[in-house]
Amino acid sequence: MTVRIGLIGAGRIGRVHAEHLANRIPVANLVAVSDIFVEAAEKLASDFQIPAAYKDHRRIMEDKTIEAVVICSSTDTHAMMIAEAATAGKHIFCEKPIDHDLSKIDHVLAVVEKTGVKLQVGFNRRFDPSFQRVREIVAAGEIGEPHILRITSRDPGPPPIEYIKVSGGIFLDMTIHDFDMARFLMGEEVEEIYATGGVRVDPHIGEAGDIDTAIITLRFENGAIGSIDNSRKAVYGYDQRVEVFGSEGVVMVSNNTPHTAVVSNASGVFGPLPQFFFIERYTEAYIAEMKEFVKCIQQDTSPPVNGIDGRIPVVMGYAAKMSFDENRPVKLSEVEKA
Amino acid sequence: MTVRIGLIGAGRIGRVHAEHLANRIPVANLVAVSDIFVEAAEKLASDFQIPAAYKDHRRIMEDKTIEAVVICSSTDTHAMMIAEAATAGKHIFCEKPIDHDLSKIDHVLAVVEKTGVKLQVGFNRRFDPSFQRVREIVAAGEIGEPHILRITSRDPGPPPIEYIKVSGGIFLDMTIHDFDMARFLMGEEVEEIYATGGVRVDPHIGEAGDIDTAIITLRFENGAIGSIDNSRKAVYGYDQRVEVFGSEGVVMVSNNTPHTAVVSNASGVFGPLPQFFFIERYTEAYIAEMKEFVKCIQQDTSPPVNGIDGRIPVVMGYAAKMSFDENRPVKLSEVEKA
Amino acid sequence: MTVRIGLIGAGRIGRVHAEHLANRIPVANLVAVSDIFVEAAEKLASDFQIPAAYKDHRRIMEDKTIEAVVICSSTDTHAMMIAEAATAGKHIFCEKPIDHDLSKIDHVLAVVEKTGVKLQVGFNRRFDPSFQRVREIVAAGEIGEPHILRITSRDPGPPPIEYIKVSGGIFLDMTIHDFDMARFLMGEEVEEIYATGGVRVDPHIGEAGDIDTAIITLRFENGAIGSIDNSRKAVYGYDQRVEVFGSEGVVMVSNNTPHTAVVSNASGVFGPLPQFFFIERYTEAYIAEMKEFVKCIQQDTSPPVNGIDGRIPVVMGYAAKMSFDENRPVKLSEVEKA
Amino acid sequence: MTVRIGLIGAGRIGRVHAEHLANRIPVANLVAVSDIFVEAAEKLASDFQIPAAYKDHRRIMEDKTIEAVVICSSTDTHAMMIAEAATAGKHIFCEKPIDHDLSKIDHVLAVVEKTGVKLQVGFNRRFDPSFQRVREIVAAGEIGEPHILRITSRDPGPPPIEYIKVSGGIFLDMTIHDFDMARFLMGEEVEEIYATGGVRVDPHIGEAGDIDTAIITLRFENGAIGSIDNSRKAVYGYDQRVEVFGSEGVVMVSNNTPHTAVVSNASGVFGPLPQFFFIERYTEAYIAEMKEFVKCIQQDTSPPVNGIDGRIPVVMGYAAKMSFDENRPVKLSEVEKA
Repeated sequence: MTVRIGLIGAGRIGRVHAEHLANRIPVANLVAVSDIFVEAAEKLASDFQIPAAYKDHRRIMEDKTIEAVVICSSTDTHAMMIAEAATAGKHIFCEKPIDHDLSKIDHVLAVVEKTGVKLQVGFNRRFDPSFQRVREIVAAGEIGEPHILRITSRDPGPPPIEYIKVSGGIFLDMTIHDFDMARFLMGEEVEEIYATGGVRVDPHIGEAGDIDTAIITLRFENGAIGSIDNSRKAVYGYDQRVEVFGSEGVVMVSNNTPHTAVVSNASGVFGPLPQFFFIERYTEAYIAEMKEFVKCIQQDTSPPVNGIDGRIPVVMGYAAKMSFDENRPVKLSEVEKA
Repeated sequence: MTVRIGLIGAGRIGRVHAEHLANRIPVANLVAVSDIFVEAAEKLASDFQIPAAYKDHRRIMEDKTIEAVVICSSTDTHAMMIAEAATAGKHIFCEKPIDHDLSKIDHVLAVVEKTGVKLQVGFNRRFDPSFQRVREIVAAGEIGEPHILRITSRDPGPPPIEYIKVSGGIFLDMTIHDFDMARFLMGEEVEEIYATGGVRVDPHIGEAGDIDTAIITLRFENGAIGSIDNSRKAVYGYDQRVEVFGSEGVVMVSNNTPHTAVVSNASGVFGPLPQFFFIERYTEAYIAEMKEFVKCIQQDTSPPVNGIDGRIPVVMGYAAKMSFDENRPVKLSEVEKA
Repeated sequence: MTVRIGLIGAGRIGRVHAEHLANRIPVANLVAVSDIFVEAAEKLASDFQIPAAYKDHRRIMEDKTIEAVVICSSTDTHAMMIAEAATAGKHIFCEKPIDHDLSKIDHVLAVVEKTGVKLQVGFNRRFDPSFQRVREIVAAGEIGEPHILRITSRDPGPPPIEYIKVSGGIFLDMTIHDFDMARFLMGEEVEEIYATGGVRVDPHIGEAGDIDTAIITLRFENGAIGSIDNSRKAVYGYDQRVEVFGSEGVVMVSNNTPHTAVVSNASGVFGPLPQFFFIERYTEAYIAEMKEFVKCIQQDTSPPVNGIDGRIPVVMGYAAKMSFDENRPVKLSEVEKA
Repeated sequence: MTVRIGLIGAGRIGRVHAEHLANRIPVANLVAVSDIFVEAAEKLASDFQIPAAYKDHRRIMEDKTIEAVVICSSTDTHAMMIAEAATAGKHIFCEKPIDHDLSKIDHVLAVVEKTGVKLQVGFNRRFDPSFQRVREIVAAGEIGEPHILRITSRDPGPPPIEYIKVSGGIFLDMTIHDFDMARFLMGEEVEEIYATGGVRVDPHIGEAGDIDTAIITLRFENGAIGSIDNSRKAVYGYDQRVEVFGSEGVVMVSNNTPHTAVVSNASGVFGPLPQFFFIERYTEAYIAEMKEFVKCIQQDTSPPVNGIDGRIPVVMGYAAKMSFDENRPVKLSEVEKA
């Protein structure tokens, strides 16, 4: 009845998923974890009573009792892991992005297709209760025909420069989540992207060839338009708001706060800051996405975020990058042809 | 290293604690559960991988490897369970109230005192992140000297009439939580209580000898004053707000909502209702109180809500009842003498 | 077509009404002002182009072209002014309270009745857009049958001690507005009052025989209950909130702010304080009440706040005072018999 | 001591200014009004006790006792009126825009310069208490160095098609206000604009050669970026929000509401819609801008919104239009060269 799962990668996000699989999702049975730093795998195994800890992920791939893998290893290994797991007949949950190389993505999606395993990509924000409610409201036509999308997505602070250097750039590392949200919330594909921005937070980010502040304008195939703004550093915390405006109304989502205590004194009214970062803000979303993954295996249904959903935001990231580099609007079709 | 715990009572609140002990508090080891309906105990044991399920709670009391018990049985058994557990040298977490009979409470508190076990009473709201923040702010003097306390505490709907009949009345069943909050938030003892109210929600509640709507005025020993309002039925959901006003400011807590999506259309602006009831609103608080209980055993410290904290709100409940019956302010000392 | 009006009393509130009559209410024609400090009358006349300024209010009473008077003189002269104006056949707008002496009130109400002039009492809060909306919602049954009323009414700072000494005490000076709001919002009469409180803000207020902090519990004739809390000093500004809770919902009014700019930084989220005091908060209400007064003269209709509306809150003030002095609930009928 | 003013144009906005000059600004003396529809001028004169009403605005220009004119006539006459008034030595308040023709603007600004009269352009939003607070906060460095500007500006409904046809298009008619806000709030000049959008509200607007929905991306000279979104139709009312995000924090302004009454019932929480349209939202701003105009005459200081402030948003409007037509980012310098 339960689904036997192996976890690959025992880093920060691996730990998040391990805790949820071990404690919050009774039908999941987390039976093995691997990490090239085997101590990390062993620590995780110990913390969450996981029976097996390996250095080599192939031990998981070779274990025929394991039905599914959760891939939390470094981005450059995702495609390989997906291909191996698919070939081994295991269902796959993979953290975003599948890869930065579109041809590699296309290759592994073909393997997945051929082997018939399920592949879910970790766009966790789709499972946030507030964003889900927005999607429901938009899909139900409660705000009429959508005209304008606004997404504000700002991190509390930039990652280390070493990470920035291998991240693929802000559009593929950070905006990619917002690109997914844009498609999800609007239920529409984006046709053209214009990106502008610069280095405002930290000159080292610029020296690493990246930017840290951006506004990305989207044009959807149906004529709706959207605007995403990103910053690598919002001193007040993780700022995650969306707004969909339509012919019959508007729906907005504000930030979550860790408590609701508000103090008024002679100086003003003081409210709480947003929840600090993605681990706090999206806890429920991480649990929900994993529950859905397990459920789609149990019930043999399609994953709620599939391989194509994993691929398109990468295309959008390249379009944004090209737009920024050339300072002109870029069609997604240009990226496909490139 | 872990604390071996037995759970007595497999009803709704027992299930809440079982889930947290089993999944959310790694240092707790829930090893047995008992319920006079043994099927309930067995179901719980099965759901949360608890090794033993008993009909007779004495099996837990007699198990020398069990260090602590969590008492979730019916109110009328609390005092007996506490006495038995204390005598058996086990630390005790007991759901509120200890009992409705003050002499029984005094008896068991004496037993606890003598045996030296720890007793924590389940006033979970003290562990709500928002109320805790209020307490911190008040205790830190951020709003100066507290002058006025306001508590709004309304349930989404009344319990069954059968429950009402044995509940001890609204003041001992429902307001008791607010009495605890009053003491907790203000850090002061109440001296006098005036209660007024009536039957506004359901005449059957009146026929059962109780009321369903009340305002309770408090006078604290230091001269501060407070007002609590209660209703058994708020159609919009569980309404749990507090406000402490002082010489240098005011701090307020509003309700939590399951999401933050707000829709504006031609008719108005539509926000989400509060989280439905105590299970939803106080999930984090239930986990936190149990963590604190386990921690105070491990670290051999005093429980954060002790036996006296369990006793005083019962005295306040009687004072409120006497005040309501006689339509006059009643000093807590009158209850003690009665 | 316009209504010719004389203003008696050129103090702070007289100036407020003068400005509105002169500039904001085209159908009003403010033709004279009097004040025992004639310089104050002259200054007001100069500021608002009022043709005549007198020391003696009888010059206004004797002017047969003046149809209505607005009485803003000191409280102890209100009854006399009303009687004189009524005898002179002039319609009357009088600031609250009519008097602190119930027999005097009864006398002048009888004079008003006999002469057939219109008398409107200056309970301006009834005309606040937010409180009016609450009244509409309650009256329309949108929240079902009202069960609980909550009023928070706190001033930014106490008046001078000299004023306190002649104010009649907090219940007749400050709570009287809330008593009026209670009747207005609920559309029900109050039967019994319990008041508690003390001196928390300034010991000089206590030395003057008054208190500065209070909670007043109301029982309405239909069984609904209410709670008012008052403080003479809220350091964060004028705090004016109401809430009516009923069988089908709740309606709440929060404070107004002078702007909506909210700053979030690393320390927290900072919003604006409420509008400072009654002049700022109730500007629109002052204009609206005066417009209604002029309109009821032009259209020969009943004033929206009549003499009885002016009398009952005084009775409530005495009941609150008796309750506080004797620490027991007091019926309004006891005051009538006293 | 007072400033003698003539008003040119007795339409909707002329009436707004007339009321404020007549009733709300004591130091202003509105002595004449003109309108080519003389009945409109006469009606206004009668409503606000203006001594003279003319068909021909030259009667005002020729009146040597008139120190200043307020120009509220149709846009195509603004430049001429300014030139005539300047030549007549009168100070000028002119509704936006000065003109749609940059060379005409340059001509009249040269006349104003030469004659030495004061010219204030009617960008009223700068005087909104909330937006002013944002500007103060940004200018004081409270949010550090500004990185991102967001403006949401949506009308409750489109103007008549006949108006649209002569409006100059959405960027010159509607966004022009937001262009002014962008410069005002950031205290920086815009270097480049990218505009996208379409016809989403009403196909007749498209047939008239205009669009009704747009997102405009701004790049400021100092590297900051901004995004404006516009819609001609927000069914929930006039939506006017801004946000400035910087290195040390963010400041946001939300909509104003006519009251604060919020109802919660079994269906949800229902709050009030924003104030309907610009007359309601910006009443205080209209008064404040006119007060400033009168004050700068009395004190012989520079107007707070000068001719250059009136010119630049027109340049920005053309840049936006060019960007939209050619689907590429356009530098403001390109417009100047065109």
